[in-house]
Amino acid sequence: MQTHDAAPAGAVTTATGAPPHRGRGRRPAEEVRADVLRTVGDLILSEGLADLTFERVARSSGVSKTTLYKWWPSRGALALDGYFHAVEPALAFDDTGDVRADLSHQLHSFAEVMGTPGGRALLQLVGGSQTDPDLAAALSDLYTSARRRLAEERLARAQEAGQIRGDADVRVLVDQLWGAIYYRLMVPDGVTVDAAFVDALVDHLFDGVTPR
Amino acid sequence: MQTHDAAPAGAVTTATGAPPHRGRGRRPAEEVRADVLRTVGDLILSEGLADLTFERVARSSGVSKTTLYKWWPSRGALALDGYFHAVEPALAFDDTGDVRADLSHQLHSFAEVMGTPGGRALLQLVGGSQTDPDLAAALSDLYTSARRRLAEERLARAQEAGQIRGDADVRVLVDQLWGAIYYRLMVPDGVTVDAAFVDALVDHLFDGVTPR
Repeated sequence: MQTHDAAPAGAVTTATGAPPHRGRGRRPAEEVRADVLRTVGDLILSEGLADLTFERVARSSGVSKTTLYKWWPSRGALALDGYFHAVEPALAFDDTGDVRADLSHQLHSFAEVMGTPGGRALLQLVGGSQTDPDLAAALSDLYTSARRRLAEERLARAQEAGQIRGDADVRVLVDQLWGAIYYRLMVPDGVTVDAAFVDALVDHLFDGVTPR
Repeated sequence: MQTHDAAPAGAVTTATGAPPHRGRGRRPAEEVRADVLRTVGDLILSEGLADLTFERVARSSGVSKTTLYKWWPSRGALALDGYFHAVEPALAFDDTGDVRADLSHQLHSFAEVMGTPGGRALLQLVGGSQTDPDLAAALSDLYTSARRRLAEERLARAQEAGQIRGDADVRVLVDQLWGAIYYRLMVPDGVTVDAAFVDALVDHLFDGVTPR
């Protein structure tokens, strides 16, 4: 199999005894890496985790398993990085100036993404991370920390703009919006994630549930 | 080893060829079952899941493994049933007439329980249930459905008493209170579950985050 490996940054020699690269020459590492992430993201969104293997990704992307392992030390890390890049456009935060409408829009998109095989794969990785510290670290490094930061930043801008009370804790709002969706998907108990659920999440937090 | 097995309700014959019970005679099944649950609950709260085995529970409780397997078909089911009974008193819902104070009190207790080895064990079982449908069914049957129902009942009483807006969905409040705690424990990302977090959960939902 001909591979299109890139020169990893900082690599000096090839210690694996692999055959030298022939043919089309080396492409920039970032380009190859982006190709692999696209391949993995497509696989996960359409099929979930079950058939995601280094073998298959190497075959689909034309990148050697040695290089894949160098960049992603585990299947979980590869899956999470691919998933993050695949869902980034769908989970972007609008900023129309109306935080409530923007949040609602993003949360509906998030709930939709979580209903795909890719969303199911993410929940399985969160599940596995409860007993696997390496997977927990990969989950945080490659997905959840960045997603939490993006949400907190949008909420903090709204707070600065006076659309969220100054004494609210925007970090806690992340747990009460996206965290509530995760919980209902991970512990279903006869309740489902639908549009009314997402609307209620936002209404409860913005309006408060104390009678006026 | 002498075992103190009870006659399971509906059991007619012993098909296992086990030796007949001698000595102290048979105790009522419910009593034996309660003893086992106490043993399992104590083990989980103090040590978590790691060393919980049918072998060890049989030894500690003096009940045969055959009987244990008859009542609880898997280690997860045994663990969840024991855990549910062990934490029930700590997680009881007060009804002083002030739902906000009662909820706050219960949520602080819940956060405390979740910080024990038993709480960690529960999160591991939720994690495992993402890829194990039998465990997911046991989780719902033996723990989460009943806990959700207790919370919803307390919230519904408060709604009937006019302490929660009529258009709020108390089922969604469960996800935004207890679910938010689960999420922060399962996906930590540098944030912790402390008293201020629990207070903020309640304040956000009761007061709303829209500036007045």
